[in-house]
Amino acid sequence: MISSRPSIPAERYRDRLAAAGSLAGEAGFAAILVGVGADMRYLAGYPAMPLERLTMLVIPAEGGPSLVAPRLEATPARSCPPAAAGFLPVVTWDETDDPHALVAAMVRGASGGDRATTSAAGIRIAVSDDLPARHLLRLEDRLPDASFELASPVLGRLRIVKDADEIALLTEAAHAADRVVAQIAAGRLVGRTEADVAREVRERLLAEGHEEAHFAIVGSGPNSASPHHDASERVIAAGEPIVLDIGGTIGGYGSDITRTLWVTGGDPGKGPDERFRHLFAVLDGAQAAATRAVRAGVTPEAVDAAARRPIEAEGYGEAFFHRTGHGIGLEGHEDPYIIAGNTEPLREGMAFSIEPGIYLVGEYGARIEDIVVCGSDGPIELNEAPRELYVVDG
Amino acid sequence: MISSRPSIPAERYRDRLAAAGSLAGEAGFAAILVGVGADMRYLAGYPAMPLERLTMLVIPAEGGPSLVAPRLEATPARSCPPAAAGFLPVVTWDETDDPHALVAAMVRGASGGDRATTSAAGIRIAVSDDLPARHLLRLEDRLPDASFELASPVLGRLRIVKDADEIALLTEAAHAADRVVAQIAAGRLVGRTEADVAREVRERLLAEGHEEAHFAIVGSGPNSASPHHDASERVIAAGEPIVLDIGGTIGGYGSDITRTLWVTGGDPGKGPDERFRHLFAVLDGAQAAATRAVRAGVTPEAVDAAARRPIEAEGYGEAFFHRTGHGIGLEGHEDPYIIAGNTEPLREGMAFSIEPGIYLVGEYGARIEDIVVCGSDGPIELNEAPRELYVVDG
Repeated sequence: MISSRPSIPAERYRDRLAAAGSLAGEAGFAAILVGVGADMRYLAGYPAMPLERLTMLVIPAEGGPSLVAPRLEATPARSCPPAAAGFLPVVTWDETDDPHALVAAMVRGASGGDRATTSAAGIRIAVSDDLPARHLLRLEDRLPDASFELASPVLGRLRIVKDADEIALLTEAAHAADRVVAQIAAGRLVGRTEADVAREVRERLLAEGHEEAHFAIVGSGPNSASPHHDASERVIAAGEPIVLDIGGTIGGYGSDITRTLWVTGGDPGKGPDERFRHLFAVLDGAQAAATRAVRAGVTPEAVDAAARRPIEAEGYGEAFFHRTGHGIGLEGHEDPYIIAGNTEPLREGMAFSIEPGIYLVGEYGARIEDIVVCGSDGPIELNEAPRELYVVDG
Repeated sequence: MISSRPSIPAERYRDRLAAAGSLAGEAGFAAILVGVGADMRYLAGYPAMPLERLTMLVIPAEGGPSLVAPRLEATPARSCPPAAAGFLPVVTWDETDDPHALVAAMVRGASGGDRATTSAAGIRIAVSDDLPARHLLRLEDRLPDASFELASPVLGRLRIVKDADEIALLTEAAHAADRVVAQIAAGRLVGRTEADVAREVRERLLAEGHEEAHFAIVGSGPNSASPHHDASERVIAAGEPIVLDIGGTIGGYGSDITRTLWVTGGDPGKGPDERFRHLFAVLDGAQAAATRAVRAGVTPEAVDAAARRPIEAEGYGEAFFHRTGHGIGLEGHEDPYIIAGNTEPLREGMAFSIEPGIYLVGEYGARIEDIVVCGSDGPIELNEAPRELYVVDG
């Protein structure tokens, strides 16, 4: 397969870092402190491992950003696109240094005074939402007069709208996951454990081009009624449904698709019962209705309601007990959330899942999930795998 | 392959939870709040996905523990061994509830007073080290009079010594990773990108029984001199070394092995040069010396020094610029760290890596890493792959 994978140019990171600094200033933050994770990857293209040593992007409202990294990660840190292009200085610390004190000094310095003496009284600092307590509590300790808040209200404004390169990566990931669904549906399932099928899903996600396989939910029989079931040692039997919800990342961007299968074991007498067929038809209609509702200017809660209405009309309202979807990008779940109460209108370039489900707890359930990008006058559907109930021999 | 994988019984989790509560009380904490991650897995056997919704183990010093979970994860939460066995009540919250306020009320209730009115003034709360800022800042907000500290000084005392079942899982993971090293060393390497080899490593880690492939460092040529290099688009050439550092998890417990290869492309003239052979021999001796130093009662810093001494004696001291090792268990890096300054004596059952490296930055480098368990009178080496320089055609 010839790869035409888009790569994000260094200038894009420079612009994102500059925008983050400006937004920090507008919001009254002295600095944004970004730990390892999706925010760092978005702003600096640096996919550092989330280890216990502090790696941190320091973005002051005034003055340029820096990347603080342990010395033994100096080479990869200096290789991230904005650092390699000279837009982002890298400050390293040694094994016996106190990196949190180093960051605290940089923040105090940036907030206007002499590093050694200025207190941080009254300054507000934003931290990336996934910064672990091991770093946050130490930063709070080193900056006792500062107040700390989440950075997502600032950084989310940048990350929530995807550019063309990001959409291309999401599309590539979606198509790779589509192929895995087709492969699993065509293979043997009956008599295998859910965990064994999940292992195969992960291998196939990698083989189809994902650099990481993040999840492989295989919910068979009654487990299909537990939305966040993982994959157990339960053996799949003929005559039951399987909810398959799988995803990984390509170029850091996520895939996430759910399809519902029914395995007959080759016995025509073990096809889906009438109630399941009806339940699935209702669900299919709801998923289509929500997708059709997507358009710039529409609220996420209206999309959520569009999925919920047909399900409630058939008496399954109580059986659809989660939101309709979540944003996707460098994180598997991010803004915008497609949920009641979210009234911030959709904008062109937002990417999210549409994934209603109907769960008869203890019995069985079904879910259909696609990734959709909001276009100016309608949805752009990234997944191409058929949305029907996959009745297969298994 | 017939699986004889040990499973941790529900009673073990009950005992761990009880021990955590007692230790919390002794340390003066009103409660320990444990988010999704290794601590939760250790204490409750619950491998919840680290999503944005709050899942939290609440362990008060007085009274029993509870597991707070979003309603849509009620089924997996109630299926974790101590919950299924009736030792751990599960409290669910709905999509529109405030789960952080719920936890705050539980903490205030546990600290002795009426939930609605008692302030949390003066109480100390421990949080798991990996709890994300999105939860910690909200908990700090809902409990403004409480002080928050890291839970690792308490929970680390439990987790740092592995029991027989944990060592069995670490051993199974180590052997699976050993097999992958042998497979990669026997295969084609020259002409492929590091990223392509890393993909193969991940697939093979899964095929050999890992449920997740966590990392696959493939550092070729000059990249072998960057300890935390990942895997790039660099094409591997004949006549250079490759540092292969790979790992994943089996039953939640990690593998982590490093071997250094030299690829000749089948050309006997492209074998390792004299300097590299010497460097590797020094490293091999250092790794063996550090391993031999492992014994109950010895300090980690003495083990670190045992690795460093022969490397310094040959003038490579500056080229070994990271600690000698890290603990391993439900986390890839955890206590005990094998580093200068760590004077807490090793105890029987502690498990950690021994991984010195010599890095001539810009040129090339090498590392050898094994997982070792501290025995009463010596090391128990879990990896069985040869430690020699793998000179292969590639």
